[in-house]
Amino acid sequence: MTDSRDETDSFGPIAVANHHLWGAQTQRSLSNFEIGADRFRWKFPVIRSLGILKKAAAQANSELGQLAPELARAIEQAADEVIAGRLTEHFPLVVFQTGSGTQSNMNANEVIANRASQLLGGKLGAKSPVHPNDHVNCGQSSNDTFPTAMHIAVVAQLEAQLFPKVQQLRDTLAQKAQAFEAVVKTGRTHLQDATPITLGQEIGAWVAQLDYALATLRRGMPELYDLAIGGTAVGTGLNAHPRFGERCAAFIAAQTGQPFRAADNKFFALSAHDALVTSSANLRTLAGALLKLANDVRWLASGPRCGIGEINIPENEPGSSIMPGKINPTQCEALSMVCVQVFGNDAATAFAGSQGNFQLNVYKPVMVHNVLESIDLLGDACASFDMHCARGIEPNLPVIEANLAKNLMLVTALNRHIGYDKAAKIAKTAHQQGKNLRETAIELAYTTADEFERWVRPLQMTHSSE
Amino acid sequence: MTDSRDETDSFGPIAVANHHLWGAQTQRSLSNFEIGADRFRWKFPVIRSLGILKKAAAQANSELGQLAPELARAIEQAADEVIAGRLTEHFPLVVFQTGSGTQSNMNANEVIANRASQLLGGKLGAKSPVHPNDHVNCGQSSNDTFPTAMHIAVVAQLEAQLFPKVQQLRDTLAQKAQAFEAVVKTGRTHLQDATPITLGQEIGAWVAQLDYALATLRRGMPELYDLAIGGTAVGTGLNAHPRFGERCAAFIAAQTGQPFRAADNKFFALSAHDALVTSSANLRTLAGALLKLANDVRWLASGPRCGIGEINIPENEPGSSIMPGKINPTQCEALSMVCVQVFGNDAATAFAGSQGNFQLNVYKPVMVHNVLESIDLLGDACASFDMHCARGIEPNLPVIEANLAKNLMLVTALNRHIGYDKAAKIAKTAHQQGKNLRETAIELAYTTADEFERWVRPLQMTHSSE
Amino acid sequence: MTDSRDETDSFGPIAVANHHLWGAQTQRSLSNFEIGADRFRWKFPVIRSLGILKKAAAQANSELGQLAPELARAIEQAADEVIAGRLTEHFPLVVFQTGSGTQSNMNANEVIANRASQLLGGKLGAKSPVHPNDHVNCGQSSNDTFPTAMHIAVVAQLEAQLFPKVQQLRDTLAQKAQAFEAVVKTGRTHLQDATPITLGQEIGAWVAQLDYALATLRRGMPELYDLAIGGTAVGTGLNAHPRFGERCAAFIAAQTGQPFRAADNKFFALSAHDALVTSSANLRTLAGALLKLANDVRWLASGPRCGIGEINIPENEPGSSIMPGKINPTQCEALSMVCVQVFGNDAATAFAGSQGNFQLNVYKPVMVHNVLESIDLLGDACASFDMHCARGIEPNLPVIEANLAKNLMLVTALNRHIGYDKAAKIAKTAHQQGKNLRETAIELAYTTADEFERWVRPLQMTHSSE
Amino acid sequence: MTDSRDETDSFGPIAVANHHLWGAQTQRSLSNFEIGADRFRWKFPVIRSLGILKKAAAQANSELGQLAPELARAIEQAADEVIAGRLTEHFPLVVFQTGSGTQSNMNANEVIANRASQLLGGKLGAKSPVHPNDHVNCGQSSNDTFPTAMHIAVVAQLEAQLFPKVQQLRDTLAQKAQAFEAVVKTGRTHLQDATPITLGQEIGAWVAQLDYALATLRRGMPELYDLAIGGTAVGTGLNAHPRFGERCAAFIAAQTGQPFRAADNKFFALSAHDALVTSSANLRTLAGALLKLANDVRWLASGPRCGIGEINIPENEPGSSIMPGKINPTQCEALSMVCVQVFGNDAATAFAGSQGNFQLNVYKPVMVHNVLESIDLLGDACASFDMHCARGIEPNLPVIEANLAKNLMLVTALNRHIGYDKAAKIAKTAHQQGKNLRETAIELAYTTADEFERWVRPLQMTHSSE
Repeated sequence: MTDSRDETDSFGPIAVANHHLWGAQTQRSLSNFEIGADRFRWKFPVIRSLGILKKAAAQANSELGQLAPELARAIEQAADEVIAGRLTEHFPLVVFQTGSGTQSNMNANEVIANRASQLLGGKLGAKSPVHPNDHVNCGQSSNDTFPTAMHIAVVAQLEAQLFPKVQQLRDTLAQKAQAFEAVVKTGRTHLQDATPITLGQEIGAWVAQLDYALATLRRGMPELYDLAIGGTAVGTGLNAHPRFGERCAAFIAAQTGQPFRAADNKFFALSAHDALVTSSANLRTLAGALLKLANDVRWLASGPRCGIGEINIPENEPGSSIMPGKINPTQCEALSMVCVQVFGNDAATAFAGSQGNFQLNVYKPVMVHNVLESIDLLGDACASFDMHCARGIEPNLPVIEANLAKNLMLVTALNRHIGYDKAAKIAKTAHQQGKNLRETAIELAYTTADEFERWVRPLQMTHSSE
Repeated sequence: MTDSRDETDSFGPIAVANHHLWGAQTQRSLSNFEIGADRFRWKFPVIRSLGILKKAAAQANSELGQLAPELARAIEQAADEVIAGRLTEHFPLVVFQTGSGTQSNMNANEVIANRASQLLGGKLGAKSPVHPNDHVNCGQSSNDTFPTAMHIAVVAQLEAQLFPKVQQLRDTLAQKAQAFEAVVKTGRTHLQDATPITLGQEIGAWVAQLDYALATLRRGMPELYDLAIGGTAVGTGLNAHPRFGERCAAFIAAQTGQPFRAADNKFFALSAHDALVTSSANLRTLAGALLKLANDVRWLASGPRCGIGEINIPENEPGSSIMPGKINPTQCEALSMVCVQVFGNDAATAFAGSQGNFQLNVYKPVMVHNVLESIDLLGDACASFDMHCARGIEPNLPVIEANLAKNLMLVTALNRHIGYDKAAKIAKTAHQQGKNLRETAIELAYTTADEFERWVRPLQMTHSSE
Repeated sequence: MTDSRDETDSFGPIAVANHHLWGAQTQRSLSNFEIGADRFRWKFPVIRSLGILKKAAAQANSELGQLAPELARAIEQAADEVIAGRLTEHFPLVVFQTGSGTQSNMNANEVIANRASQLLGGKLGAKSPVHPNDHVNCGQSSNDTFPTAMHIAVVAQLEAQLFPKVQQLRDTLAQKAQAFEAVVKTGRTHLQDATPITLGQEIGAWVAQLDYALATLRRGMPELYDLAIGGTAVGTGLNAHPRFGERCAAFIAAQTGQPFRAADNKFFALSAHDALVTSSANLRTLAGALLKLANDVRWLASGPRCGIGEINIPENEPGSSIMPGKINPTQCEALSMVCVQVFGNDAATAFAGSQGNFQLNVYKPVMVHNVLESIDLLGDACASFDMHCARGIEPNLPVIEANLAKNLMLVTALNRHIGYDKAAKIAKTAHQQGKNLRETAIELAYTTADEFERWVRPLQMTHSSE
Repeated sequence: MTDSRDETDSFGPIAVANHHLWGAQTQRSLSNFEIGADRFRWKFPVIRSLGILKKAAAQANSELGQLAPELARAIEQAADEVIAGRLTEHFPLVVFQTGSGTQSNMNANEVIANRASQLLGGKLGAKSPVHPNDHVNCGQSSNDTFPTAMHIAVVAQLEAQLFPKVQQLRDTLAQKAQAFEAVVKTGRTHLQDATPITLGQEIGAWVAQLDYALATLRRGMPELYDLAIGGTAVGTGLNAHPRFGERCAAFIAAQTGQPFRAADNKFFALSAHDALVTSSANLRTLAGALLKLANDVRWLASGPRCGIGEINIPENEPGSSIMPGKINPTQCEALSMVCVQVFGNDAATAFAGSQGNFQLNVYKPVMVHNVLESIDLLGDACASFDMHCARGIEPNLPVIEANLAKNLMLVTALNRHIGYDKAAKIAKTAHQQGKNLRETAIELAYTTADEFERWVRPLQMTHSSE
């Protein structure tokens, strides 16, 4: 290949096409790890995080006198291009590589070194004036940089992708809860008719569940702000300036606007990623909440004539290639599938998180991949569900009213007036005879018509105002 | 304690109360592993399997000239008492012990040695004339005996506890499917009304799913018949007679009536328990099928007035401490909870199965525990569901007929006569105007009344006989 | 049966043996749910929690004028007996029952009503003067009482069983970390020799990981303090005094010394148990940390001659029934098996948590069972591991020193003096020629002997003090 | 947009860019499901399978007189282009869509109809002469076509991607097992030194485990050959020719060379996908086996100086950005990460498989996605591991021999000559005094030098030939 150059590492030279900025180790990884190449390339959040980290490292090393200012400036400029997404094509590596993410750290070192050298008038592959290891990776090891980038990426995606989209769905539902606060309907427990609630209360429970999931996720942020940087190879900080971790984290915080800091115990920060396991579990809890929500919505909308049918949801597309006119709760289904995927991703993450040995957990890439994928999918699915389903939820009042009118569990309001046993007798008799509660109560002489009407008032029952 | 004796092992003497038949290593385990003592003692299937194994080992060793006949006979007699359940109280150890099950193997060796010595006039604790290691454990190691006992126990419980109970439920449902083969009702896809099926077809799908689960479990039996016995410490068979494994397995087969055999590769048989992982996964598939079944049943029985209500199920107990007259699908719920437990047990089993190192997987006890627990729970839950729910399933014909009459998806029968697009127009118009299909089809002049009646025939639609 | 009485519920009379205090619904449940009867009876923490709740409910109802003081006092007295463990035999029901726990709530109502009636001179089965529904269950439903008892039980077991035992293990390890802070040894990443650390640092990482796990569990407590009580059937609080939930929670808080309070959104509190899912996930994170710890310990102790062998752990029992003198890391194995069980229990819990419908999640019993089992097992296993293993961890100094002396990664200290590339050359040459770093560095003329000794100082490398 | 056309469905017209062959429903799906758009587009195996199915359906319908031969021929020709990969760009939809895969079925119908119409001189969007529903989807529903395509795709990928690559790795290892059959080394159980085995036996256990995993996967193929086709909307086969399913399956079999057939029970085939759950579980078992293998390899290769170090594996790239000369077992790590991903994918699949309702499971896309991803990853990872690691495994004879020489468990060979207790004494004494077995045995006067040498012969111990 004439338009290639030799890049070198401790294994010797290897040809790299001239239009790539990467170096020898990236090139080796490409042929050594042909695993899931079409789907598992790192996406931008990880690449950007490596850029942010390398920029901050140069700033810190410069400040601490570990790196010549002109080299630091060139590294920062190259890193800024990574952060801006202008060099993304030069990050070709996949998730399934070395378990420390070494090759992606080296990919960043190589691309930034080459680009910084270029900016300073150097030649690609010369490792001069900017060297990937000695300068870009100065004071760092893959073992502390990659987990640092993992945290930066997860925090960024939680903030940019997950929280606003879940919040938007939550807000839509909160508006619906308010709008329908006077719609009294049949409650259901054990899938059986139960005492009445308002549609607002029913939807409000979904809102409360999303609020809980969001709060739990936010509660896990502080440990995500703790960065491994400064630990280098095994956590001791060997070869890094004593203040490097702290200063680098401060520059990362400044760059991102998030309160990142150097972790107290770097040995822990390299050998386990329990904050990610916690985040993954919290995403799973969110998924569990969304699955319950999606199921409730599609069951309430089931029918149109032979199901529950108490709410209407938007009709977005034809539902069947064979049944004309069929409409399906497709947003619920897409959301549900995302939820089970998140359960699976979490299982992988937690398994990986338990498999560290000694000073390193070598499942870093697969852990951050799964957490980021869950964030992406949940964010997308919430936005889609919000836009194409939740905003269009409307009560089907005729059905709601018809169901409520025949609901035998209204009898519960009589407990306090005539006792549980007589109330049960009314309900059972009405059920067996196919009658309504009112006529049965009167026939059994347990209440007068007047009493029945005074005592059995569905709206009041929902407010427990008796 | 005056009524105790000294038992000894290579660690020295330790006091054991005289009313216990166990020896030194069992006694040590009791104080070394106080973990889940109230719930995780081995149940009889494991103890019985150790008895079967030790009896067969004595038979094989005697036949092969490795053990004096009179010692062998005493061991067999003591083992028979274990098998008969008469010594169960002398097996006090729990699941969470050494990962090879060494202490339970030694528990069996000690109890049988003591009891056999007693039968031969010896004294408890003397290890004479029958020695736990040299005689009862002759030609064996925990590493091959415990997995052998695991397979014996799992096969026994599958045959005695799981298969007949699932089969009984399956047969009940098959009878229901036949009984209701002419009950035409609304089909449902995406929880939405779909083209008609018979209740027999609906129930028949559950039967087919159970048949698949049973077939899959049975398909996994051959590898469960493969026994580790003969491998001893690391799989080489060191210290065992070359034909010991084969002969011991033959005696086990004779005792149990199951086609057990010595595994071809003993190294595999000690270092991994993939046949158990497969069985666990197959139990999970069964649990998935049962969860779908339980959900279908409770949804079809939902109501009584504001749900689907197309079947009635037995009313077994009051359903609510506050709502008089409420009846709940409690058998479905108990079965569902068993199903999720089985999913959890399977996750533990598969995780454990992946964690072997070199010549041994040291998660043996937790693996067999989970598989046996899943078998027990699924068997019990199927029997309970069969007895208290499935046998009492009856169609609620008025609801079924009313639902079918208003089901818009009957329009699908018109596709082949007037095309998908016109059929869709009829369904949508009827839906919007709250009319039935027949009047709408005629109003739109897409069919005559006569044509409609000839073309839209629900029972025929279920047989796809057009 | 002559020594039985009739107990009644809305299904009619049923015979109950006179020596049982329970009533009709408990009796029905016994025959309706023969599932896992030998292992899945509720253990004391759940029974005690129901007692606490019923006592507090009587106190609250009395205060609010809903219950005659003399009835309340009798109920409190009976409940105190439950709390004290004196009536445990009267709680025979199992986990796999109605998914709302209705039958266990009724079991508590029945036992307490019978016992309270007895205390007031009434007859068993008469439901008078104390009625199980009207008095003991006053203002309550199974749907709010059972999840309330779930939270009480989980909080109690976390505080009494889990936290102190994990903390004790953590403290033992923290002492070890301090004791061995000057023991310099080989670090390991990717299972390969890496730059040196101290044994104190290595153990300190385990301590930090346990601290994280404990902190995360504690962070999840506030939502466990939120109680469903006051929600009654569907969350509306129907039939309960408006202040009942708040007052009942206050009495529970007083009884337990924990800051329990009534949940803000009762609809959420009945229809999902996400705080339990979070606790379960946090227990899983703890299990992941303990698995890493157990693995590190057994690998570091591997050998005695052909493994790593850098630490010694206590020898608790003979390790093999065939290999004389073999000692195994059995405490590590028992702990590891507990960890995978906790992963399985968590999978069941999270699955169950996602399966609620409308106003109720009917997987309550299986959820609380799994969380409590994980707490029990982790507590027991940590105590066992602490007592029988962690306290006895000692460095094997000759091995540690020999390993450190030959560790090629000490070369890393030269990076900053001679550059990464020359350092790599030294390491590779030494490796190929089987030499040590010092002689190789000098032979290659990259350092003088003096420089080498000044620059490569293992203890300093661990403190990154260069 | 001037270069677009109107496509129509029952919702009305929608603009589609002219360079796309898809129609209205595909276009709607693109905006309705913006979920994971960058990573979750269907890959070729699913698209190809839809092409195979649509071709076979046209063949069957033509043969059965349901479709005019010239239309059938055009559909077949268009489907052939799909199969050949020439129309892949026209399949833009993602996994997270309608749970029945309706939109991907319609995507195939639309693209093939447009392309076939084009071939017959028609205009894009005219649905004439070839109509997507009436002709391409003739006798079909999404509910039976999509699961049919799922099975075709999974079978194809198992055969083309998984089996050969796993087999290749297995064969490499089998060759290594043979090559090293005389290399006697230390066995290890509980991570502790155990009696000797040969390296061939050790590797042979991996081979046996892979053989088991492959056999189990193959054993699950028959149910994958069962196709849902012919079931149409709910399983009844409504609107399909009675022989359509059988004939279509036969054409699929002819096209693929695999023994596909129409499933016996179509209701089961639509409402559950248990054969996929089984396949997923079998992939998980394979992953468990590979994880054990990867762990064994990296532990055996650990070091180079402070680990076990009994084998050498290829050095593929620099192992550290900070530690010069470090080499890591990176192929083991990549493979391990794939294994935990497969565990996660399986968890998602099994969860999804349990969530069907009535006549349909609406988690079809997510199920097939996860199974196919696991197949892809496992195949790629096995090929990579085979090429870059397994082929280069070599024994490190000096280390193996040194370890074996000092291994105390060789004492086990003495059991049968001097008894377990004396043998234990030798081992313990040697261990405490740091001596070797031979001198200790002689010092203790338990054997003569001659006896020791005759009795303790490591190679013979591995063959259990005494």
